[in-house]
Amino acid sequence: MKTKRLVADVGGTNTRLALFDESDGEFSALATFSNREFDSLEAVLDQWLASLDEPSPERGCIAVAAPPSGDQVSMINIGWAFSCNTLARRFGLRQFTCLNDFEANAHALPYLQGDDLEEIYAGREGGHTTLATVGPGTGLGGSTLQWVNGVAVARASEPGHASLAPVTDLEFEIFRALLPTYGDIYVELLVSGAGLARLYEVISQVQGRTPEALTPAQVSQRAAAGEDATCEQALHTFCDLLGSTCGDFVLSNGAYGGLFIAGGIVPRVVPFLRQSDFLQRFRAKGAMRKHLEIVPVHVITTDHPGLIGAAHAPLQER
Amino acid sequence: MKTKRLVADVGGTNTRLALFDESDGEFSALATFSNREFDSLEAVLDQWLASLDEPSPERGCIAVAAPPSGDQVSMINIGWAFSCNTLARRFGLRQFTCLNDFEANAHALPYLQGDDLEEIYAGREGGHTTLATVGPGTGLGGSTLQWVNGVAVARASEPGHASLAPVTDLEFEIFRALLPTYGDIYVELLVSGAGLARLYEVISQVQGRTPEALTPAQVSQRAAAGEDATCEQALHTFCDLLGSTCGDFVLSNGAYGGLFIAGGIVPRVVPFLRQSDFLQRFRAKGAMRKHLEIVPVHVITTDHPGLIGAAHAPLQER
Repeated sequence: MKTKRLVADVGGTNTRLALFDESDGEFSALATFSNREFDSLEAVLDQWLASLDEPSPERGCIAVAAPPSGDQVSMINIGWAFSCNTLARRFGLRQFTCLNDFEANAHALPYLQGDDLEEIYAGREGGHTTLATVGPGTGLGGSTLQWVNGVAVARASEPGHASLAPVTDLEFEIFRALLPTYGDIYVELLVSGAGLARLYEVISQVQGRTPEALTPAQVSQRAAAGEDATCEQALHTFCDLLGSTCGDFVLSNGAYGGLFIAGGIVPRVVPFLRQSDFLQRFRAKGAMRKHLEIVPVHVITTDHPGLIGAAHAPLQER
Repeated sequence: MKTKRLVADVGGTNTRLALFDESDGEFSALATFSNREFDSLEAVLDQWLASLDEPSPERGCIAVAAPPSGDQVSMINIGWAFSCNTLARRFGLRQFTCLNDFEANAHALPYLQGDDLEEIYAGREGGHTTLATVGPGTGLGGSTLQWVNGVAVARASEPGHASLAPVTDLEFEIFRALLPTYGDIYVELLVSGAGLARLYEVISQVQGRTPEALTPAQVSQRAAAGEDATCEQALHTFCDLLGSTCGDFVLSNGAYGGLFIAGGIVPRVVPFLRQSDFLQRFRAKGAMRKHLEIVPVHVITTDHPGLIGAAHAPLQER
C-alpha cells in the first residue's frame, strides 16, 4: 500500500478518483462521481475511501479545474472551496500536491502512450526536451513541462486570451465581421467549443446565409460527415487557427520538444485535422520554421490525462 | 578570491568582462573588448585574465548572444565557436555556466534596482512570482524566470516570431499594405529596430507620402523630439504593438509576477512609451485584464543586464 497514491481529476461536472501504484504503474479502484450530488470534494473523497477494501493511501495528488492560487482552491462553477493543507491533514495525506488541470496535463505528457495518443507528425530529433500542450474546450488553456536538474516542472498559462491574427481572405472577413462586436479578437473567441459555433455563425453571415442554431458538437459532426459546406469551412478554419495558435505558444515558451493537443473537441475530428492546414499554419513562422518542422505533434485521445498527470507529478511533504 | 566569479556578456559586437564578488555583490575589473579585434572568445579571456592583479577565478558564467544548444556554442555573425566544457577546462573554471543572453536577462531581473530600471507601473500584490522580459532590438526575444523549490529557472523563447494582430484602423492599413510582401505579419517584422523603420516607411506610404531613408534611431529621435508627425505615428504604433506583444507573452507563459522591457530601443523613448497606449494594449486581453492590471511593468535601463544575470545564475559543476 505504501507505493499507492490517491489520484483525482476534479472537473466542473465530474470527479474521477483512483489509486495509482507507483511500483507497477497500474491504476485501480477507478470511480467517477457526479459533482452535483455532493456538497464538497471532501464528501466525494469520504464516500470513495469508504468503498476501498484496503487502507487509505498516505500520499495523494489532485488535479482541479481551477486557477492555481496557493493553498486555497475555489471552484466557482460548482461552489466548492477547500484548503489543500486542510484536505491533506483531514485525509492523512503526508505527501500531497494540488494542481491546476493544465499543470496535470503537462505532467501526463511523458507517460502518454499507445491508445492515449494519435500521431499527427512523428517529429525529428532536435535535442529539445520542453513539452507543450494546448487544449481547446470550454476555453483554450495551455501548459509546458520542462526538466530542471531531472525534476519535471509544469507551468500552466492562458494562451486562450492572447491575440489571434487573420491570415486567409476568409479569416480577414471573419475578423472584420466580429471586430465591431468584440473590439479585439483573442484566441478562444474562435478556437474553443463556443468559438467553433461562432465560426459557423459568422461564416454563414459573411456568405449571406442564415445560420441554423447549432451546438459546437453539431458543427463538428456535420463537418466530419461532409454534410454541410459551411460547417466544413468552420471546422477547417478552426483547425487552421489552432495551428497558428499552437505555433505561437511553442515559440513563446521555447517548447520544441513536442506538441500535444488536449481538450474535448479535437480527438473527435482527427481525420479532418489531418486534411486541414493545421501543420502548415503551425510551422508558418518565418525564420523559426526549421525549429517548428522537427516538433512531434500528437492529439491526446485518452479521456483521463488529468489522472495520469496526478499519478506522476512530484508530491509535497505536508 | 573564492567568492569571486568571472562574468561575461558576449554580444555580437562587444564582449564585456568583470569579476563579481558574491560576498558583497560588487563588480570589479570591468572591461569591454571589441570582438572584431580577436579571433576567438578564448583570446579575449586570455588578454583580460593576464591583466588581473589577482588569481584567476575558479568559477564563471558567460552570457552569449547565440541560441542555447548544449555544449557547443556557435556565434554565426562573428564566426566564433566554442565548447563550454573545453572552455571551462582550459581556464580552470570548476563551476561554470554558459547561458543564452535572454536567459541571462531573466536571471538579472530580481537583482535590478535603482538606476537599472525605469518604472512604468508599480503593480499590485497578486501572489505571483514568475517574471517575464521582452526585448525589442535587432529582433525581439523573450524569457521568463520561475522559482522551483527555491531555485531560479530561466527559459528563453522566440516571441518575435509569433503572430501579431492588428487592432486600430491604422494597424489594419499597415497590415494590409505589408501582407502582399510578407504573407504573415510576425511580431519582430514591426516590433524591432528594423520594424520601427519599416513602420515609418509603410505609414508614409499608406498616407501617400514618400518616406525618407531613416534609420531606426533617427525615427526614434525625430518622434521623441516631436519633429516629424509620421515618425511619431510610427513610434506610437511600435509602443502599442509592443504592449499587445507583452500581454500575449505574459499570458502564454503565465508570468504575472512582473514584466521587464529590455533591448536597446525602449530605454531611449520612455517618456514617449508612457504617453502611448502601451499599458492599455498590454492589458486589453478580455477576461484576463484583471490579472494583467496588477502586473508591475519596468523598462530595463542598465546597459549590462547580461552581466548582472551572469552574476546570479546558478553554476554547474565541471
